[in-house]
Amino acid sequence: MTLPARAQEPGTTHTVHPGADGSGAVRRTVLPGGLRVITEAMPTVRSAAFGIWAGTGSRDEAPADAGASHYLEHVLFKGTERRTALEISAAVDAVGGDLNAFTAKEYTCYYARVLDADLPLAVDVVSDMVAASVNREEDVEAERGVILEEIAMRDDDPGDLIHDEFSTALYGDVPIGRPILGTVDSINALSRDRVHGYYRSHYLPPNLVVAAAGNVDHDEVVRLTAAAFAPHLAGDARPADPRVGGPEQGASPTAQVIDKDTEQAHIVLGGLGVRRTDERRFALGVLNAALGGGMSSRLFQEVREKRGLAYSVYSYTSQYADTGTFGVYAGCQPGKADEVLRICRDEIAKAAERGLTAEELERGKGQLRGGMVLGLEDTGSRMSRIAKSELVYESLLPVDEVLARIEAVTLDDVLAVAQDVLTRPQALTVIGPFGDHEFAL
Amino acid sequence: MTLPARAQEPGTTHTVHPGADGSGAVRRTVLPGGLRVITEAMPTVRSAAFGIWAGTGSRDEAPADAGASHYLEHVLFKGTERRTALEISAAVDAVGGDLNAFTAKEYTCYYARVLDADLPLAVDVVSDMVAASVNREEDVEAERGVILEEIAMRDDDPGDLIHDEFSTALYGDVPIGRPILGTVDSINALSRDRVHGYYRSHYLPPNLVVAAAGNVDHDEVVRLTAAAFAPHLAGDARPADPRVGGPEQGASPTAQVIDKDTEQAHIVLGGLGVRRTDERRFALGVLNAALGGGMSSRLFQEVREKRGLAYSVYSYTSQYADTGTFGVYAGCQPGKADEVLRICRDEIAKAAERGLTAEELERGKGQLRGGMVLGLEDTGSRMSRIAKSELVYESLLPVDEVLARIEAVTLDDVLAVAQDVLTRPQALTVIGPFGDHEFAL
Repeated sequence: MTLPARAQEPGTTHTVHPGADGSGAVRRTVLPGGLRVITEAMPTVRSAAFGIWAGTGSRDEAPADAGASHYLEHVLFKGTERRTALEISAAVDAVGGDLNAFTAKEYTCYYARVLDADLPLAVDVVSDMVAASVNREEDVEAERGVILEEIAMRDDDPGDLIHDEFSTALYGDVPIGRPILGTVDSINALSRDRVHGYYRSHYLPPNLVVAAAGNVDHDEVVRLTAAAFAPHLAGDARPADPRVGGPEQGASPTAQVIDKDTEQAHIVLGGLGVRRTDERRFALGVLNAALGGGMSSRLFQEVREKRGLAYSVYSYTSQYADTGTFGVYAGCQPGKADEVLRICRDEIAKAAERGLTAEELERGKGQLRGGMVLGLEDTGSRMSRIAKSELVYESLLPVDEVLARIEAVTLDDVLAVAQDVLTRPQALTVIGPFGDHEFAL
Repeated sequence: MTLPARAQEPGTTHTVHPGADGSGAVRRTVLPGGLRVITEAMPTVRSAAFGIWAGTGSRDEAPADAGASHYLEHVLFKGTERRTALEISAAVDAVGGDLNAFTAKEYTCYYARVLDADLPLAVDVVSDMVAASVNREEDVEAERGVILEEIAMRDDDPGDLIHDEFSTALYGDVPIGRPILGTVDSINALSRDRVHGYYRSHYLPPNLVVAAAGNVDHDEVVRLTAAAFAPHLAGDARPADPRVGGPEQGASPTAQVIDKDTEQAHIVLGGLGVRRTDERRFALGVLNAALGGGMSSRLFQEVREKRGLAYSVYSYTSQYADTGTFGVYAGCQPGKADEVLRICRDEIAKAAERGLTAEELERGKGQLRGGMVLGLEDTGSRMSRIAKSELVYESLLPVDEVLARIEAVTLDDVLAVAQDVLTRPQALTVIGPFGDHEFAL
């Protein structure tokens, strides 16, 4: 299926998808200055999710800026030319909405979920935060303490910490491998001017996507957004292209033990996966579902159901512009860590060698299909889907097209991706009371 | 507003609410044997949430059974007369549904969320688990390890552990104060026969509620449920009445420090709140919203926004049949714990003395109102609401009636509940690297 190239001229509006087959009508407008507005109509709900996405994240940080994307995400709640921090939060609290934000490696999102009648308020508040943040010195200072607390909280939860440690072990000391939160040292070193400079250089209209899903009218969202961003919407800049990333990353096998006085051993074992646009992502999704994606998966059955060795055991994938991750997590008694690791490795090796059974293939497809359709009842999921189609994909795949690609996955497709991905060099991170004990890769 | 008494005769079906004003049509049937089925129609969605609730939880455990409700919840996934553990999970994974369960102090819930076409499957699987579990010796043994891992995982996350510790500090060593998970010792001591005996004595039709919400047809849910529970549906037993609980609990002030090598101090300070049916719960909800329920709340503003002392700081309430909790949580640098505690106490004292401002009252009402209406777009929330109306309330309050009661809250109502609840004896629990340092109450 080929889709028409996206119109990028400011002033153009077009229908991306007419709606039907599980998708609502999706419309898209490019405003002057290169700001994109994309909406999906869900006329049966009474709420709306509104988000502004910046195509910047921790991957875009120079070493001296490590943690700046996330730091800035916090500071944007602290006040604009028109509103104090209290006025920002009070406006959304007063209508019972959710106002929040998150920072990822490749993008940052600010969003509100409100009743449909409150959409104008949500657009005004979130746009104001993103377009007119003042980033005052004293606010940057106060927020430094908050972020250091967030780092300390992450450090206190080994089930959270291990994912940051594993990422660094797998990718190395490069932007994509570093923790999104930054480090205590990098946060302490970031000045107001650097944070503000990051804002000024990264939050430009061509690098932003405005997205709304729910009981929304496209023209109204465009009008409200244009009003809120008015001072910034001039010129003939075009929207930024989706992130390309670099060449495929290489990874060297590493094994790392972090000695910590915990009750459980926390283990992540994994390697590089596939990039976001890799056609094999659907086959890898099915493989992941069958290997460790649900209660009926091999890892859950072997580690938890049959042997009672873990409460939490699963596999996962993540995708980026030019690379990805396939990993397995397990938490178990320290004395059982070797046994659990052995089982995980056996299951990975078996899948790499023989792929899945026909029954697992069908079940894995059903799991992806049902999970996707169920997820799309939520306005926030729909909003994220259309925003990411702008930021990181070349086009929006209609839901029925995604379902068709899942359905098309064969046993051979799964075996091929398993033979590639599951045999790549692996990184292993273990947190637990292990002193100088080592785990072999 | 008075509502008609609920029909309790087996064989009766009636309309609890005709639908409109934010509620779907709610219908209720009492099956022979005293099994209740209650459904809410949401014809605009394409999915369904189906749950079976047992009116039993950790409060119902004798000391020798501590943790049995939750242990049993795990074991019910392990196999029935017709299905293995793998067949249970595979059936729901194959359609991309969510199958899960949770145990609380006063009830236990098993649920599935699926596409509407898969509702018959969900009813069959969940009913089979609840009605025909075999609780084999070897499965109980394997699951013991899983639950010990769950306890270890909780112990490794101080932000989770502190809530269990606080509950015991506040209520004492009585069933409502004990951890839902049980303890390592109590789990090790539970035999298959005790777990199975708990199942046989507590999972009887009068003590169960079957609830479904979404694109469901009441008569079909009744028919499917009756078929799945067929061997158990005889006799003229009536549904159990809602839990009454004991007399209002008393609590003595206690301060407890758990020395642990953590990065943050984790703090909970609180006392007894109000019971679930207390008319003041709406006023307490508004008070809680304004004091620590959102980003614009006093605690968030004073502790985080102005001073940057915490990432996470909030207040919360919980309600039970005969008692409740009002508490405040904060996580901060150990060296700042005294300062954070002082601020929390100041804000509690100020609210107890002077209540809220008119602006905070309106904002708090809006927050409850919007949060409730937004929450009800989710089939799972609707399913829980109607199930709880059977298990723990005398009736189902229609959504518009709840909204009217929120709207009716006055500044005087808030002040009155603040003067009572916020001046009760308090318990304080702190986890952190404090050695034998003590915190005064």
